[in-house]
Amino acid sequence: MPPVGALLWRALRVHQVYGANTDVGKTILTTILCNSASKIWKDEQVSYLKPVSTGPQDEADDRHLEYYAPNTNIETLFQWDIPTSPHAAAEVSSKPIPTDHELLAKIHHHISQRAHQGSGWLFLETAGGVHSPGPSRTTQVDLYAPLRMPVILIGDSKLGGISQTVSAFESLRLRGYDVESVLLFREPVHENYRYLADYFGDKYGISVETVGAPPTRHENPRIDRESMAEYYNESSEEKAVHDVLLQLDKRHQSRIARLEEMPAKAYQSIWYPFTQQKHLTPERITAIDSAYGDHFQTLQTRPPTSSTSPDINLLRPSFDGSASWWTQGLGHANPKLTLAAAYAAGRYGHVMFAEAIHEPAMAVAENLLQGLQNPRLSRVFFSDNGSTGCEVAVKMALRAARVRYGWDQDTKLGILGLKGSYHGDTIGAMDCAEPCTFNEKVEWYEGKGFWFDYPTVQCKEGKWVVDVPDSLKSDIGNGEEFASVADVFNVEGRNQAEAARKYEAYIERTLETLQKQGRKFGALMMEPVILGAGGMIFVDPLFQRTFVNVVRRSSYLFATTPISSSPSQADDNTWIGLPVVFDEVFTGLYRLGRYTASSFLGVHPDVSVHAKLLTGGLVPLCTTLASDSVHEAFLSDDKSDALLHGHSYTAHAVGCQVALESLQEMQSMENRGVWDAFKTDGWVSPDSSTPVATPRDANDSIVWSAWSRAFIDTISHHTARVSGVWALGSVLAVTLRSDGATGYKSSAALSLQARLREGYEDGRWNVHSRVLGNVFYIMVGQTTGRTAVRELEGVLTEALSA
Amino acid sequence: MPPVGALLWRALRVHQVYGANTDVGKTILTTILCNSASKIWKDEQVSYLKPVSTGPQDEADDRHLEYYAPNTNIETLFQWDIPTSPHAAAEVSSKPIPTDHELLAKIHHHISQRAHQGSGWLFLETAGGVHSPGPSRTTQVDLYAPLRMPVILIGDSKLGGISQTVSAFESLRLRGYDVESVLLFREPVHENYRYLADYFGDKYGISVETVGAPPTRHENPRIDRESMAEYYNESSEEKAVHDVLLQLDKRHQSRIARLEEMPAKAYQSIWYPFTQQKHLTPERITAIDSAYGDHFQTLQTRPPTSSTSPDINLLRPSFDGSASWWTQGLGHANPKLTLAAAYAAGRYGHVMFAEAIHEPAMAVAENLLQGLQNPRLSRVFFSDNGSTGCEVAVKMALRAARVRYGWDQDTKLGILGLKGSYHGDTIGAMDCAEPCTFNEKVEWYEGKGFWFDYPTVQCKEGKWVVDVPDSLKSDIGNGEEFASVADVFNVEGRNQAEAARKYEAYIERTLETLQKQGRKFGALMMEPVILGAGGMIFVDPLFQRTFVNVVRRSSYLFATTPISSSPSQADDNTWIGLPVVFDEVFTGLYRLGRYTASSFLGVHPDVSVHAKLLTGGLVPLCTTLASDSVHEAFLSDDKSDALLHGHSYTAHAVGCQVALESLQEMQSMENRGVWDAFKTDGWVSPDSSTPVATPRDANDSIVWSAWSRAFIDTISHHTARVSGVWALGSVLAVTLRSDGATGYKSSAALSLQARLREGYEDGRWNVHSRVLGNVFYIMVGQTTGRTAVRELEGVLTEALSA
Repeated sequence: MPPVGALLWRALRVHQVYGANTDVGKTILTTILCNSASKIWKDEQVSYLKPVSTGPQDEADDRHLEYYAPNTNIETLFQWDIPTSPHAAAEVSSKPIPTDHELLAKIHHHISQRAHQGSGWLFLETAGGVHSPGPSRTTQVDLYAPLRMPVILIGDSKLGGISQTVSAFESLRLRGYDVESVLLFREPVHENYRYLADYFGDKYGISVETVGAPPTRHENPRIDRESMAEYYNESSEEKAVHDVLLQLDKRHQSRIARLEEMPAKAYQSIWYPFTQQKHLTPERITAIDSAYGDHFQTLQTRPPTSSTSPDINLLRPSFDGSASWWTQGLGHANPKLTLAAAYAAGRYGHVMFAEAIHEPAMAVAENLLQGLQNPRLSRVFFSDNGSTGCEVAVKMALRAARVRYGWDQDTKLGILGLKGSYHGDTIGAMDCAEPCTFNEKVEWYEGKGFWFDYPTVQCKEGKWVVDVPDSLKSDIGNGEEFASVADVFNVEGRNQAEAARKYEAYIERTLETLQKQGRKFGALMMEPVILGAGGMIFVDPLFQRTFVNVVRRSSYLFATTPISSSPSQADDNTWIGLPVVFDEVFTGLYRLGRYTASSFLGVHPDVSVHAKLLTGGLVPLCTTLASDSVHEAFLSDDKSDALLHGHSYTAHAVGCQVALESLQEMQSMENRGVWDAFKTDGWVSPDSSTPVATPRDANDSIVWSAWSRAFIDTISHHTARVSGVWALGSVLAVTLRSDGATGYKSSAALSLQARLREGYEDGRWNVHSRVLGNVFYIMVGQTTGRTAVRELEGVLTEALSA
Repeated sequence: MPPVGALLWRALRVHQVYGANTDVGKTILTTILCNSASKIWKDEQVSYLKPVSTGPQDEADDRHLEYYAPNTNIETLFQWDIPTSPHAAAEVSSKPIPTDHELLAKIHHHISQRAHQGSGWLFLETAGGVHSPGPSRTTQVDLYAPLRMPVILIGDSKLGGISQTVSAFESLRLRGYDVESVLLFREPVHENYRYLADYFGDKYGISVETVGAPPTRHENPRIDRESMAEYYNESSEEKAVHDVLLQLDKRHQSRIARLEEMPAKAYQSIWYPFTQQKHLTPERITAIDSAYGDHFQTLQTRPPTSSTSPDINLLRPSFDGSASWWTQGLGHANPKLTLAAAYAAGRYGHVMFAEAIHEPAMAVAENLLQGLQNPRLSRVFFSDNGSTGCEVAVKMALRAARVRYGWDQDTKLGILGLKGSYHGDTIGAMDCAEPCTFNEKVEWYEGKGFWFDYPTVQCKEGKWVVDVPDSLKSDIGNGEEFASVADVFNVEGRNQAEAARKYEAYIERTLETLQKQGRKFGALMMEPVILGAGGMIFVDPLFQRTFVNVVRRSSYLFATTPISSSPSQADDNTWIGLPVVFDEVFTGLYRLGRYTASSFLGVHPDVSVHAKLLTGGLVPLCTTLASDSVHEAFLSDDKSDALLHGHSYTAHAVGCQVALESLQEMQSMENRGVWDAFKTDGWVSPDSSTPVATPRDANDSIVWSAWSRAFIDTISHHTARVSGVWALGSVLAVTLRSDGATGYKSSAALSLQARLREGYEDGRWNVHSRVLGNVFYIMVGQTTGRTAVRELEGVLTEALSA
């Protein structure tokens, strides 16, 4: 079931006719457009498509066209006899109701066939108004959005029609449609067209054209037919109609030209993030026309595969395999998020946040504080992205430590972390990471801290293996093997065993050595469970948990002088040892299947950073949460002791409203059991030591992934190319055997990436992915369905075997 | 002319009735609501308000109400006899057409009177559909938005009515309206209510209620009246109607309760930017209900002023005097920006940007490259805010210098800048600023550079004075005086005079000293014209220009060893000396009246940073533009030589589309001469040496401000409190005589801030402002009208004299 993509051919101009209301003359004006197009482009084929028709067949729109537009190729795809809204007609009929996907696929197939036959025009006529429900009850404006056909909006010329036309336009616009023409009857009483011409011209540069109204119905059918025929004959010659068609044709050409020129223009004028521009070519730059659900609609650059298909669809859907740099959760162009953004923009715009509060910021703060279920956290600070949020976190933590331990301003403080950590690209966030490819050449980078080695987890030949790097084997042994990933996460149970004692001893010994070297630390900072940009490294959760525990009981290793009043372990919410900062920018908010990744470790951080999925994949926003005991360090009578950090758009209303919608939607998905199907695919099984939980408990106890256990098992046996694999939540990461160079500089994953981009099923199933050296990963959205993931698994298995 | 604010009283519940279409039963259902409310709340007053009515008076809606809802207080504000859309009726009538402001003010006055009379309900009935034009041609949904009344949407029960109802809802929603109830007739054939109940319930949690349809019209008027009376009698008892009213009442209470509880909740759970939280109290936190145009709608916390006004309007408009931290340009809740954001969200969501291109990013890049008219700039890099954009800029510049001069990785590079510069709050951006209050206590801050003293400009007692700090007087003299600010900006002319020679010599001498100390620099980085966060410091433009020129001709002072192939001055677009970085985040994109602030200096930087107004004040986005000669330094066969900086939401489509709309709108305003009225208010005058230019040339040659020259002159003579003042573009900055503490820690401006917040005209004219120590500033939007600015001037003059 390949996705249905947008429609764009060079020689076939495809347009969708929407009505501002029912009974505004859609069919009549479409008939005129068909006739006029036939006259102007005499050698080309003009087609009319009615995807869904209701009412008696002999009164149907296609019959009208057959009679009055005889040169037009006419087709209706689905027809119900009852003259009412398609959803109502379908409901009471015995005919099977097509799913949205089936309907779209049939339209796509039909129009593709037309396109193969050569140049021409195709007008797709919708039913009723823009939001009239289709057979499946999805309203048309949502239903047809993936096709992204340019729109001819038939305006309403009746009393009240100005309002109907503008509202219909707005419903189209906020779903990313391009309305290219507004066409309506030249009705002389209300003259709506006069107002609408000014309105659409001034605000949107869209021209409004009019056609004379049809003759009133005559009771004698023969006379009626004759007068209509005459009307059609005259109106198809109207200059306004010709103008509309010529303009549509021009915009069609310029849309294609623009898509085709953009890569070369971008090559000249864009400086890309994380890109060696010397290796860039215009051909490597993907022109994205639009995106819908899990897919980009990208400009097809492959030549036609055979001479029998002279005109290929210029757009093709590509699965967004990096979830657009790990941000996507609720699908591209999700109307709920769009409406949320628009509502906040319309209610507030952006309002300055210092010493002010507005509903969406308050509600997001409340959702996070409740959702994280971390009794330590009580304060929410807003910033713009994960990098700024991590800078805020480290500023918070270092100050808290300095105040507690009485260090003066000149004492140089570092952080404790893990090798391969990455917290963002601003200098302060870079300084939290050990020297690596990402930062080693950045002029002002200066790693400030100490980063531990640690054991990692991968599935290898069906076993979940805890690997210990050679450097640590003498300290903590040779690692362990588990039957399931759930067993790896049984940190309570594993904490009783010998490995935990060894981890403790190793960490404690290292901290003592650092103390003897006179080094000072102000925070423990980690990405819980998975180190993302560092190469999708799955850290043994027992190690991270132990790290936190050892740091928390080791105040004596951090204090310079004995501290007078160290908080007791009994007060759960006061930080001890060092403030513990979790960077959950990537791992949190359901990316790994749970609201918070800290729950995998059974640890409550003192500071927690959240971004990316926070806004479901729409706009940048970040929150840094902190405990009162961290916050207290900034309270004084001196303004300059405050956290003097703030961005102009702090807590911008649009971002907060979108975040609120995203968080609530993901929580609702969990509660509705949307992910239960994934959990049954091998993740919750008798051989796991984790009990099967009810959906509501899932967040705290189940380990699951959108990727099936059987698939993980299969590719983990592909030892010729794969050295290990893991899947958690929506993330799959495959470590490929390297080709010499290691890590980020390796190109081992590039051929796999290229193969998936080329695609399967004649390219219809293809994947746009990003790689991290020899690590290949795919991240689906939180809304990606089971069928799609299983198909992706098939595609990946095939690509790995190639 | 105080602004018209939103309507919210504790005891009077105020609702607006919108129709999904004309002829959907708005008046009938409003009549039922009135009758039902009168029955349930027997002791309270129920009111009906028709702001605009068309058609013969004896058929008007208010007559209908008078007959069928006799217990209701009824009022119509504007009436035209012709039964058509208000804009059309008004156009052909001889009655004066009220402006939107007049209409809103009249509504506000009328409802305020009602509120003073005690508890009750008021239903305001609109005309036609949501987008039906009002008398001034503004459609109602925009016209009434500032009132922010909760909405009862009357659904359309006819064929096609599902679409009409949903589209009307979306038009309301994207203007920030809260639709609290959908009400429609229980029509038995199409049963739209069934579908709509599911739709609004599932997607928005809004309940849809139905009322039986009215009897069909009887030809005998007496019988007709009787059957209608009976219908009203029965329907006002319908449970559904009671449920609607009870729910509206509940939501009314909870809206107020939420607004009132938010400050205390925020006080507990929000960590504010740039705020000493110890000094915060719940009372100091402003609850912002919404914002419109130049105004916040904030919760009124003052007690009622007298016992005769028991119920005050809980909301009051406050002028957003900091332009929401310098971001606002096109007004809060600008529908054009909302639609732009929604369109991009609907077309793309966010799409990953590495090696990809989409239309809004391409178009923004093109607009900036053309608009800046800087032949050096050829590359656009996207990030999320001014701070990240400045980090990108400094990374670019330092690398370029290092590669050119052959310094190794260990060579410590600083920047050259000005004292009081500020480039953002991330560590790397902080490191670009000299030690100051903002950064001195930040643990990882380490100022990396050398910052020059410089002469500053202010208007004092009517003269534009170039002040030289004492430390520089022996070097560059005692400063100068000019008759107009335009003369200060005559940098070409002034460059011929002695002052310029002295500036050169001082800068050159200082650079030589730094070279002898062995210090290495990789960039010259400045905010052109105005240093913002540093205290709204107006730097002598001749000094900044000279600084750039000296640096550019002084390669020999920066190179460690003689450089083999120094680019010649002849190649305009290659950086020489050091890459020159202009941080125009605050000063650019029309904030000072021109597309680029660099035009004031007649200098083309090699790197230029733009944010804030870039998106007109809606969502965060930043662009860093660079020259090819800077870009080249990153080209190599090693991926790790690339600029490894990138945020997940890089070039997010929503931000880019909003930026494009904002830039085009501001360019169009300039071309349309929207700001010409400001330019005549003393800025372009015979005594200025600057010639009067045509609007199209204005960007390059005219110095102007929204603040009138007469006003600046007046307050510059207020020497008891004011030590100096300046105005440029939309910014006004007043330096107040200090009360002891200086700079950021001074509280000299606090009393002025408090006075303006309290307001004038019984608080209706009040200003929300931010201060920078002893500097008081107000920044209007680019769309703020001349009348409003002149009124602000009056308010400020009064406040300064108090």
